[in-house]
Amino acid sequence: MSSLSGVILRAGILGATGTVGQRFISLLSQHPYFTIQVIGASSRSAGKKYSEATKWKMTTPIPDEVKDLVIQECKAEFFKECDVIFSGLDADVAGDIELAFLEADLAVLSNAKNHRRDPTVPLVVPTVNPSHLNLIPHQRSLHSLHKGFIVTNANCSTTGLVVALKPLQDAFGPFEAIIVQTMQAISGAGYPGVASLDIYDNIIPFISGEEEKMEYETLKILGDINETATGFNHISFTKISAICNRVPVIDGHTECVSIKFKKQPPPSIEQIINTLDSYVSESQKLGCYSAPKKAIIVNMNQDRPQPRLDRDNGNGYSVTVGRIRKCNVLDIKFTLLVHNTILGAAGSGILNAEIALAKELIKAKT
Amino acid sequence: MSSLSGVILRAGILGATGTVGQRFISLLSQHPYFTIQVIGASSRSAGKKYSEATKWKMTTPIPDEVKDLVIQECKAEFFKECDVIFSGLDADVAGDIELAFLEADLAVLSNAKNHRRDPTVPLVVPTVNPSHLNLIPHQRSLHSLHKGFIVTNANCSTTGLVVALKPLQDAFGPFEAIIVQTMQAISGAGYPGVASLDIYDNIIPFISGEEEKMEYETLKILGDINETATGFNHISFTKISAICNRVPVIDGHTECVSIKFKKQPPPSIEQIINTLDSYVSESQKLGCYSAPKKAIIVNMNQDRPQPRLDRDNGNGYSVTVGRIRKCNVLDIKFTLLVHNTILGAAGSGILNAEIALAKELIKAKT
Amino acid sequence: MSSLSGVILRAGILGATGTVGQRFISLLSQHPYFTIQVIGASSRSAGKKYSEATKWKMTTPIPDEVKDLVIQECKAEFFKECDVIFSGLDADVAGDIELAFLEADLAVLSNAKNHRRDPTVPLVVPTVNPSHLNLIPHQRSLHSLHKGFIVTNANCSTTGLVVALKPLQDAFGPFEAIIVQTMQAISGAGYPGVASLDIYDNIIPFISGEEEKMEYETLKILGDINETATGFNHISFTKISAICNRVPVIDGHTECVSIKFKKQPPPSIEQIINTLDSYVSESQKLGCYSAPKKAIIVNMNQDRPQPRLDRDNGNGYSVTVGRIRKCNVLDIKFTLLVHNTILGAAGSGILNAEIALAKELIKAKT
Amino acid sequence: MSSLSGVILRAGILGATGTVGQRFISLLSQHPYFTIQVIGASSRSAGKKYSEATKWKMTTPIPDEVKDLVIQECKAEFFKECDVIFSGLDADVAGDIELAFLEADLAVLSNAKNHRRDPTVPLVVPTVNPSHLNLIPHQRSLHSLHKGFIVTNANCSTTGLVVALKPLQDAFGPFEAIIVQTMQAISGAGYPGVASLDIYDNIIPFISGEEEKMEYETLKILGDINETATGFNHISFTKISAICNRVPVIDGHTECVSIKFKKQPPPSIEQIINTLDSYVSESQKLGCYSAPKKAIIVNMNQDRPQPRLDRDNGNGYSVTVGRIRKCNVLDIKFTLLVHNTILGAAGSGILNAEIALAKELIKAKT
Repeated sequence: MSSLSGVILRAGILGATGTVGQRFISLLSQHPYFTIQVIGASSRSAGKKYSEATKWKMTTPIPDEVKDLVIQECKAEFFKECDVIFSGLDADVAGDIELAFLEADLAVLSNAKNHRRDPTVPLVVPTVNPSHLNLIPHQRSLHSLHKGFIVTNANCSTTGLVVALKPLQDAFGPFEAIIVQTMQAISGAGYPGVASLDIYDNIIPFISGEEEKMEYETLKILGDINETATGFNHISFTKISAICNRVPVIDGHTECVSIKFKKQPPPSIEQIINTLDSYVSESQKLGCYSAPKKAIIVNMNQDRPQPRLDRDNGNGYSVTVGRIRKCNVLDIKFTLLVHNTILGAAGSGILNAEIALAKELIKAKT
Repeated sequence: MSSLSGVILRAGILGATGTVGQRFISLLSQHPYFTIQVIGASSRSAGKKYSEATKWKMTTPIPDEVKDLVIQECKAEFFKECDVIFSGLDADVAGDIELAFLEADLAVLSNAKNHRRDPTVPLVVPTVNPSHLNLIPHQRSLHSLHKGFIVTNANCSTTGLVVALKPLQDAFGPFEAIIVQTMQAISGAGYPGVASLDIYDNIIPFISGEEEKMEYETLKILGDINETATGFNHISFTKISAICNRVPVIDGHTECVSIKFKKQPPPSIEQIINTLDSYVSESQKLGCYSAPKKAIIVNMNQDRPQPRLDRDNGNGYSVTVGRIRKCNVLDIKFTLLVHNTILGAAGSGILNAEIALAKELIKAKT
Repeated sequence: MSSLSGVILRAGILGATGTVGQRFISLLSQHPYFTIQVIGASSRSAGKKYSEATKWKMTTPIPDEVKDLVIQECKAEFFKECDVIFSGLDADVAGDIELAFLEADLAVLSNAKNHRRDPTVPLVVPTVNPSHLNLIPHQRSLHSLHKGFIVTNANCSTTGLVVALKPLQDAFGPFEAIIVQTMQAISGAGYPGVASLDIYDNIIPFISGEEEKMEYETLKILGDINETATGFNHISFTKISAICNRVPVIDGHTECVSIKFKKQPPPSIEQIINTLDSYVSESQKLGCYSAPKKAIIVNMNQDRPQPRLDRDNGNGYSVTVGRIRKCNVLDIKFTLLVHNTILGAAGSGILNAEIALAKELIKAKT
Repeated sequence: MSSLSGVILRAGILGATGTVGQRFISLLSQHPYFTIQVIGASSRSAGKKYSEATKWKMTTPIPDEVKDLVIQECKAEFFKECDVIFSGLDADVAGDIELAFLEADLAVLSNAKNHRRDPTVPLVVPTVNPSHLNLIPHQRSLHSLHKGFIVTNANCSTTGLVVALKPLQDAFGPFEAIIVQTMQAISGAGYPGVASLDIYDNIIPFISGEEEKMEYETLKILGDINETATGFNHISFTKISAICNRVPVIDGHTECVSIKFKKQPPPSIEQIINTLDSYVSESQKLGCYSAPKKAIIVNMNQDRPQPRLDRDNGNGYSVTVGRIRKCNVLDIKFTLLVHNTILGAAGSGILNAEIALAKELIKAKT
């Protein structure tokens, strides 16, 4: 997108030593629009060099530009110069810190769950509902801010689900019912996260709070922003049931989805395939740098999608959908795969920032 | 069961070198009622000693009693002296061989899929529908036999499902709908089976023919035998959708099940728990040696059942059920675990034989 | 062993909620000589029922006899009635607590590393050097005790190594050099222990302190007790190099060993095989209940031993040795496997107690 | 390397549907010097489109340029137009086919083992011994060829080892003894290769022929080409012992190496580190496109190298060395990691071709 060439946004990262923070650093260090200006972590790490305070777990080396950066405490005063803040904070501290950053008129894109249910905070999956960002002026007016905001991305499993559902809802109307069963990767639990003795040769059929998140967030994201851009209309007429499991896979959440449409008869399998395959999200139309060539890749080989083979599709920003077929109980069933730490976490924050920039909700120095 | 003490049945094993055959040998070698008399395999192995022809993959050593047994071809003439035949044959050869054994008036308990859909062959999960064995006299009359029969056990995933469904159907009436999503262990695919490069750090969201088997077999097993004991009444009014995945777990199939009852309002969670927990199958009432103390173990710890921790419950003959809770779309959802190579395969064959013995459908020399 | 029939020892367990403690409970609950009398853990768990305070991770259920036992603090006053104490304490607390138990005249068998290097504490692998227990009278006299003692078992990797080395040293004289490289299971690191993100699709080529332990302990265990039974003669003339790795295996440490004998020419491969295969340890001669039928199982199939197939040999008390062959640099190389949480930890403590009982170093009420 | 800009070599690939072949295609499709001209496989696949005949197992999609290429039989007549041939053939067919291609005056870079021991065939690890390519004129004269040759790369495990040993031998003289113990990834066995039931929660302490290959190839590669460039002087005075294991890791071979130098006293740890860290191979000096920035990366963090974190160093062309320390038996020990399917297989072939091009042993059309 030519109008953005030369843009440099100074980014701050909260929770920079954690797994989401490491992914933010890894993605931003290769990004042409952002420069990593300030990194924040707990007071235990503050004052240390990043490379000394961090157990780096990415499969690429620590970027040179952050190695020697000194970690700051997560206080707004240290981040004043930043154009945009990415938060990978843990939920036990994210709520208050992000609020303090908002009050300091800083633009915060958060991966934490704390503010996702706030009626004035957009919950945005970048390839699904960027229109929800239009509430930012209202949010600012409530807090008397000029450039600050809080925008959250969704839970990793929710993210994959809504990418597949959005074009179907757009094309064929609302859902009567959704049943989704997940097989979630261990990286979704952070580090140290899942003990190897708990997951090796095993499945854990429970992830605390996850099913509730999927059921709530899906209906907020698939809903509209209201006409005055002051609130969100959650979908109220769709029944949704989520079943979440942890499986021994490193990256990539697999989800088996069954859906029933309100309108009957339902679309044909071919219509579903075509609709998913031809979906173009607003992030792509805006020409955002990280937007994938295809938001949804349909792969109808009978044994796809598979996490190890498909998670990196679109550099981790595409959702891959396969096994689209009739369901004997609801209408249609299919299987999808989402990269849980890219589109499902840090990548969503970055792509949301790119959209906010394109919509001039973040102002960049050029 | 005192009346059986001293019984010794001479067992033949077909497909003895394969994974199901190895499990038959492992279980029978420790069994007080059976002695392994003849072992059969392909003509490639015939004539060799068992220990030389077999890549033994059980975690206990080859039993001494079979080490030096010479493998026979799978022809009925070599098995004439057997009181009972256990078949672990592959589906590509099982159909014809088992039929030939039937015609030779031999009693065959088969793990193969070939005859499961035959309207005159009982498809029996021993802790669910032993009453289906009552069709054996009719089957014999059709073939003019005295003691021969074919009885099949169910597909491994079907097995776990129907154990949990049977007491609920008995107590609360038929199901309107069933959605089941499986996470199946690699041992279910035999040996060499799944390539490590295909399943390590991965999930395969497809198992050939498995979803169709689950949907068909469940409705046959949950149905009745007719009044004249000459056929089976399949359940016709229950919609069922199966979604099958292969996961990196060695043994133990996990299944996430959502159900809706015809009769509304549905039973409470507490009623479901009590019904499952207090279930006693006919195999237990008959005092069968391999019957588990509990056919169903309810474990309501929030993160159970887990394959590595629960698959050996009841020596692999119990099904463990947990996470019983409301479903927002259907009525109830829960997660179950079944040991796929014990109750889900060879163990069912053996326990079925014990039931047939108790019902005097197999005659033992004492 | 007929003279022991009817013996019941009242056992106390320290660190009962941890992984080694759980293994002690699991093994003792099925043991005819022991009854679990008192269980101790940290003050955080004290006062709670065992089943409530423990994240039980064994693959068999919590034994009924301990479910409702109330956990005590690890103070000797609560364990006075015990005939024998098994310690599965962590190293950060084991040193002082075990010493206090010793001073209280209690017989302690410890899995902790703290006292292993004490010149008055026997470091005993039960199928290798039970003669070291003969120092107990001297240890008692130093502390003015009647029945108390501390005996430690060895590090899990050391244990496997010395079982294979002991009969070779006995038969062919001392070693000039030993090089051992380990591939150690995750259960050796306790719970939660190794993070799944660290070990899945990965190897960690370092285990803190492990190489030093193997190099030190091997030379103490392979040495003699002195003539006056007041000290141990460490082997001083053998060079030993240990290389330790963590691998994605649940249970069972694999070790690749290369050895050079002082005396040249070295024994033949056949002599090595015969010596290992015919080895009978003192624990077997004493008829100890847990002693395996064979302390060493030689399996010369070219691809054995394997952890998943061989770790349960001898109920986890046998060491399996294979791939015995010439080494181009030293004399001989081979691969061994030891169950790290049975013979390599809790099982050694229990078998050591059985030996002490047989040697009348523990007095039992009959 | 400016002199090569604009070079396009027409490449043929033998064994294109296998795992090594797939890696060749994946690497070549992104390579500026090569265009994939012809792909060959077995007669079973010949005549089919590549995308239809291949079970593609790379984690990136099939390159567009080969999708619709029609597979040829591996006969020289179909490859006449190629400037260079990369062979990923299985050993059971590679010997004869590659010889036929040589006789047809084609330049063959082979990953197969068949010709590695031929005294007239260079066995070349590109970051170790490119000087061995100087024998090509002699090889051509023996076969009366103008541009054809056979050059092989080394076994994957050998490759990692010699990269670490070469600079040490150059700096400190020949080795008295080498002991190497490997933990090899499953991808090294091809596809389907290792059965998941054999390697999950397991180690296989044996890989057929691997130890012999490592012991032979290392001494050929570390040796010189003779003065007349007509033969290779194998190292004859170094004793070497290899111990090879298969472990549950997808990509990346880990090797624990202990070495003793002829010259005593041996170099210090610091000298070893500096020598490895400052090593620059001829492939780097020649400016080859695929040559890594560093042939050896020394990482002295105590728990490195690790396969998942280090295998992609230098795009898979670097060897990572860590844990360099004293050995109590030999002089020095360390642990290394090599990407077994990149530098350890297809990548070596490609980088060897680049070196041959730079040395004008392959003639390119510009």
